[in-house]
Amino acid sequence: MYDVKRREVLAGTVGLASAAMATTVTPAAAGDPSFMNNVPDPLLSGKDLPTFKFALEKTTGKVIGGSSGKEATVEQLPISKGIAGVSMRLEPGAMRELHWHATAAEWAFVVAGRVRTTVIDPQGNAETDDFEPGDVWYFPRGHGHMLQCLGNQPCHFILIFDNGYFSEFGTFSITDWIGHAPKPLLAKNFGVPAATFDSFPKDEVYFARGAIPPERPTTPLQGLKLPAETHKYRLLAQEPHRVYRGGREWRVDQSNFPISATVTGVILDLDPGALRELHWHPTADEWQYVIAGRVAVTMFGSHGRFRIETLEQGDVGYIPQGYGHSIENIGDTPSRMLIGFNTGLYATIDLSQWIAGNPADVLATNFSQPPGLFEKFPHHDVFVAGKDGPEK
Amino acid sequence: MYDVKRREVLAGTVGLASAAMATTVTPAAAGDPSFMNNVPDPLLSGKDLPTFKFALEKTTGKVIGGSSGKEATVEQLPISKGIAGVSMRLEPGAMRELHWHATAAEWAFVVAGRVRTTVIDPQGNAETDDFEPGDVWYFPRGHGHMLQCLGNQPCHFILIFDNGYFSEFGTFSITDWIGHAPKPLLAKNFGVPAATFDSFPKDEVYFARGAIPPERPTTPLQGLKLPAETHKYRLLAQEPHRVYRGGREWRVDQSNFPISATVTGVILDLDPGALRELHWHPTADEWQYVIAGRVAVTMFGSHGRFRIETLEQGDVGYIPQGYGHSIENIGDTPSRMLIGFNTGLYATIDLSQWIAGNPADVLATNFSQPPGLFEKFPHHDVFVAGKDGPEK
Amino acid sequence: MYDVKRREVLAGTVGLASAAMATTVTPAAAGDPSFMNNVPDPLLSGKDLPTFKFALEKTTGKVIGGSSGKEATVEQLPISKGIAGVSMRLEPGAMRELHWHATAAEWAFVVAGRVRTTVIDPQGNAETDDFEPGDVWYFPRGHGHMLQCLGNQPCHFILIFDNGYFSEFGTFSITDWIGHAPKPLLAKNFGVPAATFDSFPKDEVYFARGAIPPERPTTPLQGLKLPAETHKYRLLAQEPHRVYRGGREWRVDQSNFPISATVTGVILDLDPGALRELHWHPTADEWQYVIAGRVAVTMFGSHGRFRIETLEQGDVGYIPQGYGHSIENIGDTPSRMLIGFNTGLYATIDLSQWIAGNPADVLATNFSQPPGLFEKFPHHDVFVAGKDGPEK
Repeated sequence: MYDVKRREVLAGTVGLASAAMATTVTPAAAGDPSFMNNVPDPLLSGKDLPTFKFALEKTTGKVIGGSSGKEATVEQLPISKGIAGVSMRLEPGAMRELHWHATAAEWAFVVAGRVRTTVIDPQGNAETDDFEPGDVWYFPRGHGHMLQCLGNQPCHFILIFDNGYFSEFGTFSITDWIGHAPKPLLAKNFGVPAATFDSFPKDEVYFARGAIPPERPTTPLQGLKLPAETHKYRLLAQEPHRVYRGGREWRVDQSNFPISATVTGVILDLDPGALRELHWHPTADEWQYVIAGRVAVTMFGSHGRFRIETLEQGDVGYIPQGYGHSIENIGDTPSRMLIGFNTGLYATIDLSQWIAGNPADVLATNFSQPPGLFEKFPHHDVFVAGKDGPEK
Repeated sequence: MYDVKRREVLAGTVGLASAAMATTVTPAAAGDPSFMNNVPDPLLSGKDLPTFKFALEKTTGKVIGGSSGKEATVEQLPISKGIAGVSMRLEPGAMRELHWHATAAEWAFVVAGRVRTTVIDPQGNAETDDFEPGDVWYFPRGHGHMLQCLGNQPCHFILIFDNGYFSEFGTFSITDWIGHAPKPLLAKNFGVPAATFDSFPKDEVYFARGAIPPERPTTPLQGLKLPAETHKYRLLAQEPHRVYRGGREWRVDQSNFPISATVTGVILDLDPGALRELHWHPTADEWQYVIAGRVAVTMFGSHGRFRIETLEQGDVGYIPQGYGHSIENIGDTPSRMLIGFNTGLYATIDLSQWIAGNPADVLATNFSQPPGLFEKFPHHDVFVAGKDGPEK
Repeated sequence: MYDVKRREVLAGTVGLASAAMATTVTPAAAGDPSFMNNVPDPLLSGKDLPTFKFALEKTTGKVIGGSSGKEATVEQLPISKGIAGVSMRLEPGAMRELHWHATAAEWAFVVAGRVRTTVIDPQGNAETDDFEPGDVWYFPRGHGHMLQCLGNQPCHFILIFDNGYFSEFGTFSITDWIGHAPKPLLAKNFGVPAATFDSFPKDEVYFARGAIPPERPTTPLQGLKLPAETHKYRLLAQEPHRVYRGGREWRVDQSNFPISATVTGVILDLDPGALRELHWHPTADEWQYVIAGRVAVTMFGSHGRFRIETLEQGDVGYIPQGYGHSIENIGDTPSRMLIGFNTGLYATIDLSQWIAGNPADVLATNFSQPPGLFEKFPHHDVFVAGKDGPEK
């Protein structure tokens, strides 16, 4: 999306490949999302685990005026085949223009400022929504939408896509389309003179800039024609899903936000020293973004492979489906993380609960320990432990 | 799991891989259906869009006597990874013999003449149906069937498969099977003398030829044992889905033809100069076949890539999922197109409706135009515009 | 379908491909499960069919003490892309330790001895079950579990996984994880002193050994918290699904074992000379294991390709989705086979019933035979024929 060299790189590879295979083979051909097709990702089949960290906010990204978009896809973080993310900032009056993603659904969390969106569905229903910090949206794959800064303060939001390859050749903008379509065709399409389009943009605008939008949304041209399911969920306006000694968690998936069929989102707050315990997700990859604080993330990949990365504010982490991991606040201040999963139904298996789900004699044999030892282990799901350990 | 050398083999093999796998790696391995696995099709990742047109009826195809089958698969039209098509003609007395497709469901539209089919399902139910021009059938993936010319006039029908790779090593014929199975095995299987099979075909027959079938179907050997859901839908015998100034459309998907879980079919008629407007399909690829007339198809592929192809009677076109496109009758006579989608639920987003679903101030900012301009744009879905533009 | 040069072109491309794709292509990249992504498996696209037999029990496998695990994956049997299998034996007191499969569900059939399992689900429910010969279990993808020999006799069971690539880098063990995690992290996680873990295993144990388990399972640490759906099904304790002249069959899929969403299992007994007739499965691959006896398996792969393999006790066979096949007991003693499918809903189309589902005039044209001949063919589904043919 932002790397103008990407196309050449791709083109260059094709050159070699085409010697062999004419026009159809490129590196992407080897990069199926991990496990999605049952075939192990070659990146995860080495002696050591690859990095699962990317310093997203340290990149420049695409900048137009005071607006910017920084992205983390398989291009920047090769392990992230199942999920991509974008950190986007819009200045007052700016708009991420009307566009759609042919290959991904979009989920978002507003970090700062206010945002207005419009979205269309195949039934012709259109919804306009206004968002504040802590609010979430979800747009199904291929549905056209726009994102607009509201008010006279900039806004910042994190976008999550259910496809690590979403960006390159998958995002379609209305100005790019109209700018390249013949004007007589457009004239016939819309019943207006062809000259109408003389002053339209010739190429993709990406971030459009105009007047600060009206405080209350105005009515679409077609009038109100609302979808049955809303695209908006006020995540942080809810009570936390659960409060632990050492942390709290908000969670939104299809069970409470019906349209969100392919993405689950979580906000996880940890006090200094607190630990989201060792666990894995049997049905989804995990995409992490540090909103505040400093955390150590561990990842276990079988075959004795274990890796720890330190993530700071603005860094992204990634855990493939089924891989063991944990998150510990190793800073002096509370941490807050945005976590996204490529599933509509959240599922986790926590190590403490797995152990608690076994009889002591099984554990004794497994670890060559006296059975009595396991009386000292938690008899319940820990989920989050405080700096001094789990609640008893 | 047990072979400690596996890792080294994997690491070392890329070079050797081809030596070792001479017979196992092919271009097809790189050719996942576009987006189906989230990975962009390399064919669609170049600076320019590839062709999306194939002159199907100008090919010879497979010919036996007065019967023929001409096919459009990834082999002939590399962009068509999600859908393949075949134009088949049978002479009187000819039959496309009993066969099944291991890797695709089959959908068909009868252009001329009359056709009889039989089909079996895993519950042992069998259906025999007779078809006239405008009728449609659907056979689920792997279900055994035959196609037979009815009456003393030839017939012509267009087959659509929900897999661009359906043909090569995916179609299994009963004569090929019986011709290669040991006769003692067949004798035991059917309780008849092994010599029974001496006069059976030794190889695949493909198009069998015999007597013109009885005008009314005779009863299967097992008697009548009908499936709950019929395989037949009389598409053109229905009222059009909708009539527009400039055209009309018939549509059949799972909502009105329950067994058709993976294919949607459309017949689109356009008057001279009429335009199926700029739009995209968020959930499916599109396969086009021109039954009559001459049309210009545009395709928009993001990154400023825009391509126009002229399709005439007998030509095939293809639009990948999510790609913008339009169809305009540029001839002097009405055009008729058969359009197939690899989805059981039709979905489209039309550019006019997307624009109409937005407030004027949003559009003004997006296009750097005065808001009032958009009062002149349609306030509803255009879908089809006449030669002088859409209905007001 | 028509281009006879296609095969040569395919074969010729491989060499250069690897030069171009150095770091990203491995053998696995070319090995999508057959048809799962619509792309034909290159292994099945040659002039001849590859072998579909592997002598599993003749391998050594992984051995620790008196316990062993022998596996058949794409590594050992390249055609088996959709399903893998393991033959496991545990000595008294031995346990296949707590582990999970990130990329596969596990289904099992107990051949000899008694087995105890525990399994956890994402809701925190845990089930402990005891199994005898003829019993079956199913653990969904990613759910943690252990397998333990019960009593003072060894046990033997066959495991089936719904992914031919399940093994390499897909199986995660608890000792491997705990052995590589920092002790302070573990201490915080479980609320126990870090020194607790000094005597824990440092690496993967795989087969743990300890006391013979208590005859009745003891209660898990967390008490009883049972899942809604059981993981156990007593297959051979049921009446056979059906008894034929020459054989009988037991069958379990999601319709009678609700948790088993991705695997169907069958026990097929054939008397000497009996034949499971020519048939195919439109929705699944088939994995075969010979428990007793000696059988000839035929496979039909279109394009005149037909192959026969003789399978003896302990051998594995594999039939890709949609491929024609049959199984005949060619020994002097009854045969018993375990057959697994990667689907939750069993489906078969048998050649006798397909023929019986057609009128005689259709068959006459197809095979160039007089219609009256087909009066002698079965008018019903044969399924299993005795040594002298099917029931009339």
